[in-house]
Parts: sequence; C-alpha cells; structure tokens
Amino acid sequence: MYKYDYLFEFTKNVFLKMGCSQEDAGIIGEVFLAAELRNHASHGMIRIKDYYELWKAGRINVKPNVKVMHESPSTAVIDGDNAIGMVAARKSMLLAIEKAKTAGTGWVATRNSNHFGIAGFYAMMALKHDMIGICLTNANPLVAPTFSVSRMMGTNPIAVAIPALNQPPFVADFATTPIARGKLAIAEKKGEKVAIGLVQDKEGNSTDDPAILKAGGSMLTLGGDRVHGSHKGYCLSAIVDIFSAVFSGANFGPFVPPSVAYLPVLETKVGDGTGHFFGAIRIDAFQAPEEFKSRMDQWILTFRSAKPAKGQEHVLIPGDPEREAEARIMNKGICLVPAIENDLVVIAKEIGVGFEVK
Amino acid sequence: MYKYDYLFEFTKNVFLKMGCSQEDAGIIGEVFLAAELRNHASHGMIRIKDYYELWKAGRINVKPNVKVMHESPSTAVIDGDNAIGMVAARKSMLLAIEKAKTAGTGWVATRNSNHFGIAGFYAMMALKHDMIGICLTNANPLVAPTFSVSRMMGTNPIAVAIPALNQPPFVADFATTPIARGKLAIAEKKGEKVAIGLVQDKEGNSTDDPAILKAGGSMLTLGGDRVHGSHKGYCLSAIVDIFSAVFSGANFGPFVPPSVAYLPVLETKVGDGTGHFFGAIRIDAFQAPEEFKSRMDQWILTFRSAKPAKGQEHVLIPGDPEREAEARIMNKGICLVPAIENDLVVIAKEIGVGFEVK
Repeated sequence: MYKYDYLFEFTKNVFLKMGCSQEDAGIIGEVFLAAELRNHASHGMIRIKDYYELWKAGRINVKPNVKVMHESPSTAVIDGDNAIGMVAARKSMLLAIEKAKTAGTGWVATRNSNHFGIAGFYAMMALKHDMIGICLTNANPLVAPTFSVSRMMGTNPIAVAIPALNQPPFVADFATTPIARGKLAIAEKKGEKVAIGLVQDKEGNSTDDPAILKAGGSMLTLGGDRVHGSHKGYCLSAIVDIFSAVFSGANFGPFVPPSVAYLPVLETKVGDGTGHFFGAIRIDAFQAPEEFKSRMDQWILTFRSAKPAKGQEHVLIPGDPEREAEARIMNKGICLVPAIENDLVVIAKEIGVGFEVK
Repeated sequence: MYKYDYLFEFTKNVFLKMGCSQEDAGIIGEVFLAAELRNHASHGMIRIKDYYELWKAGRINVKPNVKVMHESPSTAVIDGDNAIGMVAARKSMLLAIEKAKTAGTGWVATRNSNHFGIAGFYAMMALKHDMIGICLTNANPLVAPTFSVSRMMGTNPIAVAIPALNQPPFVADFATTPIARGKLAIAEKKGEKVAIGLVQDKEGNSTDDPAILKAGGSMLTLGGDRVHGSHKGYCLSAIVDIFSAVFSGANFGPFVPPSVAYLPVLETKVGDGTGHFFGAIRIDAFQAPEEFKSRMDQWILTFRSAKPAKGQEHVLIPGDPEREAEARIMNKGICLVPAIENDLVVIAKEIGVGFEVK
C-alpha cells in the first residue's frame, strides 16, 4: 500500500525529470492519482510507462506552448503543441470556465494533444465555480461502427459533472462502449472469457475472447448489436469524435494517433494529434444557484429512492462508486500490482528519482 | 397513399380549429409530417389523436404566451405556458440560434411544455444557418435505472445535426433506450415476442413480453444490463433529464406529466410541464465554415468506407436511413394504417374539417 502523497511526489518528480514545469508536473500527478483514488487504476500509475516511452521516443512535448488559435465570446480552439494531454486539457478547461464567467457558457475544442487520463477530472474542475462541467475526447481506434468490422473509433468517453447543494455532485464519466479496454486486458491476463456482446472477431462474429483485438477484432459500441441499439452507441461515439476532432482540427476516427509508443505513428494525418472538447455552464445562466442546487438535491434523492430490483441493494447515482472509492482508498492507501511496481522501479532508476516498493 | 400536402393541410386545419394561430398550426403540421417522411410514423399522424384528446380535456394551451424568463449572453430559460410542444420548441430553438449569432453558441432550456414530436426536427433547424443543432427532451417515465424496477425516466432522446459541404448533413436522433416504445406496441399488436435485453418485469426479471409495461414492467436503458453497460445508458438518460428539467424548472424523472389524456395528471409536481433543452453552435465559432464543412465531408467519406461485416451491405452515416426514406415517401406518398385513418375520420367529423380516406 502506498500513501497518496508518496505516489503524487514520485509522479511529479518523474515528469519534472522529463523536463516539465512545476505546474505541469503537478497537474499530471494530480490526474494520475485522481484515477487511482477513483478506482480507475486502468488510467492511473499503470500509464506512467506509456508517457515515459513516448517521451523517450521524442513523441511528446514537455515544454509546450499551449495557445488559443480562434475565439468567439463563448468558444475557443486551442492548439496543445503536442503537450502531455493533462497539460493541454487543464488549460482548455480553465479557458472554458473563464468564457462561461462572461458568456454564461464556455466551450473549448483542443487539437494537437495526447491522452489526458480520466475525462471526469476536467469536468469536475467546473464544480467549485458553481458550474456544470463537460469533457469529451477521442482515442485510439478500436471500436467498429454498427454493421462494420473496421476499427474506426475510440472508446470516446463522455464526462458530465453537475453540482448539488447538500448532496454530493452528480458525476457521470463513461466510455461509449459497453466495457473499458482495460477490463478486456485484465480478463485476458486472468485467462477468463468475457460476455458475448462486447467484442467481435475480424469478420464480425460474436466472440467471448478478450484477446480478439490482437487478432484483428474490434470492440462493439454501447448497445452491442443492432437489435439492442448499437447504432445509438455508434451515434454517441461519432458525436464525441466530431466535437473533439472536427471542431478542433485534430485527427478523427481511424486517424487518431496511438497513445502508446510501441504502436507506430500513422502516415496519414487528417489533423493535429488527439482532440478533446470541454464545456463549462454557469448554473446561474439558467437558475439562481441555490434553486438549481436544491433541485439537484431533489433529483438525486428521488433517484436514490428508486425500488431496487430483486437481489440488488440500492440504486446508484452517477459518481457514487468513485466517491466511495476515494474515501476508502485515501484512508487505506493505494495498492499497486507487482508488474506496475517493477515498471516504476525501472523508470525511477533510469530517470534518477527515488522509488521504494512498499 | 396520401400526398404530403394533403396531410399537411389536414393537420394544419385540425389545429386551426382547436384555436391555434396560422403560424403555430403550420409548425405543428410540419413536425408531424417530418416524422412521417423520415419513417418515424410512431411520431407522425398517429399522435394527432393524443393532442386532440389533451385539448378536449383542457390540458393543453392553444393560445400560449411563450416567454423568456431568464437570460445570459449565450443562454435562456423559456416558459412554454403549457403550449403544444412543437410551438414552444420551435420558439426555443429560434432563440438558441439568435443567441449563437452573437455569442458563438446559444443554449435554451424550456419548461412548461408538452410532447414536441421528433427531436431531430429542431436540431436540423440549425443547419441552414451554418450551425450545429442539438435537442434533448425528457418524456413519460417508463425506463428503470440500472439495479432498479422503478419507472424513473423517459426514453429521453438526443438529437445532433451537423452540416457538411457536398455530403448530406450528419443527423443523429435517438432514444437513450435500446428500442423505442412504439416498437414494443407494434410487436404486441402483431402477437410477437421481443429480444431479451429490452424490457424487464416488475421484479426485474428479463422478459421477451412486449406488453410487460402494462403489468408494471419497465424498459431498460441503452446497454440492457450492467455487464453490457446499462449504467452508461442510465447516465445518458439522466443527463438528458437534468438538462431538460433541472435547468429549465420543468418536472423531472418520474414526475414528467403523461403526454396522453387517458393517463391522469400526477398530484405531485416538482416543476412545470415537460422540459426540453436546445443548443445551436456557429461552426465559425470553431473553424472557418468551408474548412469545417469539408472536414465533415472527409469524416463522412471515411466512415462510409468502413469494411462491412459479413452479410452487411454497407456502413450507415447517422441520418442516412431517414434521408433515404424522405425521398422515397415524398415521391410515393404516405401510407396510413386503417386504425389511424379511422381516428382521423372521427376527429375530422367532430372538429369540422374535411378528411377523405384514400
């Protein structure tokens, strides 16, 4: 078990050694650790190696000049200058919040960025400003549109954070696929099969093989098949891709650059880097803040009172599982599996920072 | 088979007789007929009876004073004054477009409205202004959140329309459930079963009975069950409900008033009427219009080129099926089933307009 502060300082020091500024290394550490606390370890310490390898391969810019390329009163386009995703994303969300202060809402599309960790982190940045936060991003192409076997889209997540008064905020943060890619990898490592309706083989046949992506297979969209609404999952994923990449001038669909160094950069580019989309909405652009927040309390309490199905304990509000995990993990400490610890030991040694396996 | 113009004039005349203005009756007719042309007959002429019954029961206002209650540079809240949904929705979307002209984006939340037909109609209003259109609405509670058997949410649709250059626009318009409620009713009438993963009984057991809603059952969210991501469908439906009703001050979740006169109005109210949410985004708030639209062409052509799965002809772009239906039905005419024709004959006679079964 590791203390939050220990892993945060370690992460920050690794990125400082790569050449990041204090501010940038701090935000990168915050986002990695937020993923660990929120029980999304697939986006936590395990990913440091990916960024380290991208940096060694010269494929990521640790001294980026993140700049605004285009503006209207409520919108902007940002060029991330090939920054580490967290750096471009935080600046973009801060600009969306600034825009919302005067225009009521702020909307920022960001190009030339990279993988930014958990989308929910940026959506939640809005909460302390009495704003609703929204964050979308495209990602490595692994998902096939309905009726197809081509890997055209990423798991393209949607995050929305909405403040309440006495209740905790509503925080939805979900991939537009039935399952996260990380869960396939875990099933594969354990030698387990997965449910039908999550992935297909290269010809479009149903399969329960979690390793099928390595054999030309693809992930299905939310809904799974046409009868169960996969075309709606395809619409959602497409909307996230267009808002993230067509709005910003980033690569879309199958052209999104891989976020791991072992995959080659594509020769065909249709824009710059990975794309994100951020929104901030002042709640008083619609309702007086107290009224809005007490209505959110009422919404949350109404949904908490829903009758559980047979064998279920209670109905969850989006954000409940992560918040419960945060309290538990902050208290008990963060657990890293030996494979990750070994990676961190190697990185620590190579780059010259301390890391002690606990 | 009926000509478009014949049914449009008939519909307009029915609503004129109810007391609607020329302008309002015209927009109501347009929305009903758009649903017929786009092959969404479940939202077309079949619904005239519902509105007629609501009007006879004095539950809908045909001379509404639709007014702006609250504003910021990029947002507004509208009170629909219990208008027929199309009337409040069109005015709200026009205001979103006006806001976008100066602020780059416009966002309008509408309360005290009623069922408005197809969401895609309002999203598509933005296209001719070189804008992206968005439309959300909540609806009659029939859908249970993950882990629950309580009917807490409607089929809460999302519509997004995005203009292209030489390609037709991208138009996604979908319920956040695996299947539309109308399709359950059709299966029931035909005596057919439905696939597992669409509905559950009152205890939360899977069932293939399309009539289960009448026995206390509920619709499932997109994803179907937890393993296949139903919690993501629940998040989506919840987001649509909050944007439509908490932002505007309408009834949310289980309190949304029924859109048919045979269901009683609930005693508990948490706001006014049904809620909608509208967005308009100037494409030049992000990119020069020609550049944006030619990038959309490139996006569409890329996705059209996706390899079809075994046994499939080609991959569809959101909006393709409806656009193909529009051309076909406008040419061949609109087919009404005898049950609908009979309803229209009765309404025509009672209200004093002509209607001839063809």
